[in-house]
Amino acid sequence: NSSLKVFTLNSNPALAKAIAENIGTELGKCTVSTFSDGEVQINIEESIRGCDVFVVQSTSEPVNQHLMELLIMVDALKRASAGTINVVIPYYGYARQDRKARAREPITAKLVADLIQTAGASRVISLDLHAPQIQGFFDIPVDQLVGVPILSDYFDEKGLEDIVVVSPDHGGVVRARQMADRLKAPIAIIDKRRPRPNVAEVMNIVGHIEGKTAILIDDIIDTAGTITLAANALVENGAEEVYACCTHPVLSGPAIERIQHSKIKELVVTNSIPLKEEKKIDKVRQLSVAPLISEAIIRVHERKSVSILFD
Amino acid sequence: NSSLKVFTLNSNPALAKAIAENIGTELGKCTVSTFSDGEVQINIEESIRGCDVFVVQSTSEPVNQHLMELLIMVDALKRASAGTINVVIPYYGYARQDRKARAREPITAKLVADLIQTAGASRVISLDLHAPQIQGFFDIPVDQLVGVPILSDYFDEKGLEDIVVVSPDHGGVVRARQMADRLKAPIAIIDKRRPRPNVAEVMNIVGHIEGKTAILIDDIIDTAGTITLAANALVENGAEEVYACCTHPVLSGPAIERIQHSKIKELVVTNSIPLKEEKKIDKVRQLSVAPLISEAIIRVHERKSVSILFD
Ligand SMILES: Nc1ncnc2c1ncn2[C@@H]1O[C@H](COP(=O)(O)O)[C@@H](O)[C@H]1O
Ligand SMILES: Nc1ncnc2c1ncn2[C@@H]1O[C@H](COP(=O)(O)O)[C@@H](O)[C@H]1O
Repeated sequence: NSSLKVFTLNSNPALAKAIAENIGTELGKCTVSTFSDGEVQINIEESIRGCDVFVVQSTSEPVNQHLMELLIMVDALKRASAGTINVVIPYYGYARQDRKARAREPITAKLVADLIQTAGASRVISLDLHAPQIQGFFDIPVDQLVGVPILSDYFDEKGLEDIVVVSPDHGGVVRARQMADRLKAPIAIIDKRRPRPNVAEVMNIVGHIEGKTAILIDDIIDTAGTITLAANALVENGAEEVYACCTHPVLSGPAIERIQHSKIKELVVTNSIPLKEEKKIDKVRQLSVAPLISEAIIRVHERKSVSILFD
Repeated sequence: NSSLKVFTLNSNPALAKAIAENIGTELGKCTVSTFSDGEVQINIEESIRGCDVFVVQSTSEPVNQHLMELLIMVDALKRASAGTINVVIPYYGYARQDRKARAREPITAKLVADLIQTAGASRVISLDLHAPQIQGFFDIPVDQLVGVPILSDYFDEKGLEDIVVVSPDHGGVVRARQMADRLKAPIAIIDKRRPRPNVAEVMNIVGHIEGKTAILIDDIIDTAGTITLAANALVENGAEEVYACCTHPVLSGPAIERIQHSKIKELVVTNSIPLKEEKKIDKVRQLSVAPLISEAIIRVHERKSVSILFD
């Protein structure tokens, strides 16, 4: 269909390209560069009047740069009379700042939602938002795709036996349950507790893991502290081997080194955030969300329900 | 008065400190740092409930980082029940993207205005906005301070004789006229024209400059191409010596080298943007806008007119 256009900005061009190929179109022509003083310069180089425009941009590191590119692009599209402006944000940065955990904290995940709407977006397509409440931060439609099926299928095809799906903390139990259902496996939970203030945390494991193949699942792996400690605790408590997986490989700071030196046999992630060369180690396996996102884009463009993609 | 609070973010802490000192207060306690993955983390560490809060932040390079710091701070202040949130933006980044010069361009100066309002600012205090129209991009009060008096006073005190104030382009004539009035001097204009497409520009000078001390004035000096070419043209056409001045020393890319090798005797700027060490060359003289901004803050806090500061 001629009125569907896919544009990429600078955060995830490989994913955007794969999406465009899947859809059977070419990436829209535009240049996204910076002026000498670091200000973002965007030029859209083809008419998009009346089109359904999809802009692919994860707000991954450098998050402020990527976010401003997105906002400026949306502004330009709005002023160029786009029909609908659909922002595809596979990884939604600032998602962990989703509530006031302490007095006088910002709620940056809400601020970002407001900024995206203010710029002029008509719809958001995202993947595994850190908190489902972030959908409610928007007053425009938000389609939230999920990574669990892609991750589960990978482990399913691997033919692992005697699996237990493990949540690294209490917040991730729902996600672990979803994966366990798909793999027809039981779940376990790492039950971290600090017995008294200023005393080291105790890693208690709720559920049976002895002799089993454990699969740890989280939405985001950032510095990899939680996940590597969890993996090691599982092995110490008798797990046969430990896999780990997540949707969003932030992998900042010491993450790669920690994973390298941990008991994790393989870490499976998606390409919601591209991996820099130095992060492409043997232990890390990256699966593509391009087919999932392409399907969502086509369905949005055809005014069909996207919820079919959620399970 | 106890209900006035001045906070600084990371773009211009020295200016903010000088402002607080002038006002006779201390900078508000807050930490502005980044998480391991580059996301901005802000913690306001004292109550600001009901206060008139002034946040000092130029959106200078790195502009996207500085802008997001400002927006997140405003969000935090709003949620912490600040009485009024006054953003003091001595240098307003993205100001040159203030119109669609070509098809399908963004108007980022307007987008930034919308973002600042969306975050929750109640007032903007700025200095020499690149285009006065940017005030109209806001639906909240904007006090626009001017740098011409500070720059003029400096040259006045220097006791230069037989001055001519020169605008480096047609867009800057109003500003040159304002300075000329204060220095009781005539003006001249560099009248750049391209006789035919793909032919080098001709630097024509409108006005008498021979044997005179020329003072070039602009609002922003970025890569310093315009200003150094203008200075050299003035000398070639018989000016005795050439000074240059501007409010906002962006000085990106080749700027310092160009100034160093130009016929400019001295470049006078303000501290709306701090100069990195490598830009602090002998030829560049920096004047403080702290007294001007402090006065504006006090007047806003006392609910008095600020327009008295405009001339
Ligand atoms: N980019 C970030 N990196 C590390 N921690 C963060 C980040 N953003 C927010 N946080 C903190 O992470 C906590 C929320 O994480 P969670 O409990 O997993 O939802 C909050 O206390 C935030 O202060
Ligand atoms: N950061 C920047 N650096 C250089 N040029 C810019 C920048 N932002 C905008 N522009 C361009 O500068 C022109 C406006 O400058 P002016 O004519 O001085 O108002 C527009 O054509 C913009 O495309």
